[in-house]
Amino acid sequence: MSESGKMVAVALANNYEDVEATSPIEALEKAGAKVTIVGIDKGKITGKKGDTQTATTTFDAVSPDDFDMLLIPGGGSPENLRINDAAVAFTRDFVGTGKPVASICHGPQLLISAKVVSGRKLTSVNKIRDDIVNAGGHYVDEELTEDGNLITSRTPDDLPVFNKAITNALK
Amino acid sequence: MSESGKMVAVALANNYEDVEATSPIEALEKAGAKVTIVGIDKGKITGKKGDTQTATTTFDAVSPDDFDMLLIPGGGSPENLRINDAAVAFTRDFVGTGKPVASICHGPQLLISAKVVSGRKLTSVNKIRDDIVNAGGHYVDEELTEDGNLITSRTPDDLPVFNKAITNALK
Repeated sequence: MSESGKMVAVALANNYEDVEATSPIEALEKAGAKVTIVGIDKGKITGKKGDTQTATTTFDAVSPDDFDMLLIPGGGSPENLRINDAAVAFTRDFVGTGKPVASICHGPQLLISAKVVSGRKLTSVNKIRDDIVNAGGHYVDEELTEDGNLITSRTPDDLPVFNKAITNALK
Repeated sequence: MSESGKMVAVALANNYEDVEATSPIEALEKAGAKVTIVGIDKGKITGKKGDTQTATTTFDAVSPDDFDMLLIPGGGSPENLRINDAAVAFTRDFVGTGKPVASICHGPQLLISAKVVSGRKLTSVNKIRDDIVNAGGHYVDEELTEDGNLITSRTPDDLPVFNKAITNALK
């Protein structure tokens, strides 16, 4: 089995950390995956530094059955997604499928609101480490952490190893 | 007793929400209070929208005894402060004195890391409500919440009532 033709959902909202979307998307597409930006609404989403992406579908229009992986970039995007019921429900259900869920930086804020962090080992930007612990998660300070289907990294500096892990997880 | 001559510490780091610093500071100074910007380091601190403030002292150089109130503006500042041990210790100790502690927007992220939220009623921007609940706090969606010495509001829209409450609390 190859990662070619695999379907990846990217959960995205305004104020995302640009490179945490663009770099993994580039790596996934280079590996032959098809990437779909899923938004709260369809249309343009703008990153912190000016990159733009287009949501072609919305959380209430998709199912975890439609995808092989969920990617959650960081920045201010996860805190915008975590207050949207459809984004939270999709994330919770996706984690429940056992298929890979990859998050970087502030991404676990969405996982916390989806109540899927308890008992899991994960990393993130250190600015939200206390929130992971309070949600029952086991926070570690590592460039890459894999616990079951959760793949997490801390910051853009970790992107090389993060991108390698997520393309491997599609195989 | 009057609010004139009262000393207010403002806990501030880069990426603060500009108006959540400038507006309360203006209200406090107009009421006769002396405002001190306390930083992780001395020197210039820059807001999300370009305002700048100058930290004239640091968390490890001050004591809660030096001030009558602690103000915690929001934006990205609280998440930068909550990973600094001296900022967290000062905040924890200040809340413990029983003197007024006022926070708005993301301000409670610092309170969460100072472990002073459990059992307290507070409000914030809704993006961190789940983190307040996971820290044992009682989250409410109100323009102003006062519980003991904690004074909290949600967003810049709440500044008129927030500013009135913090100047009243200095009396």
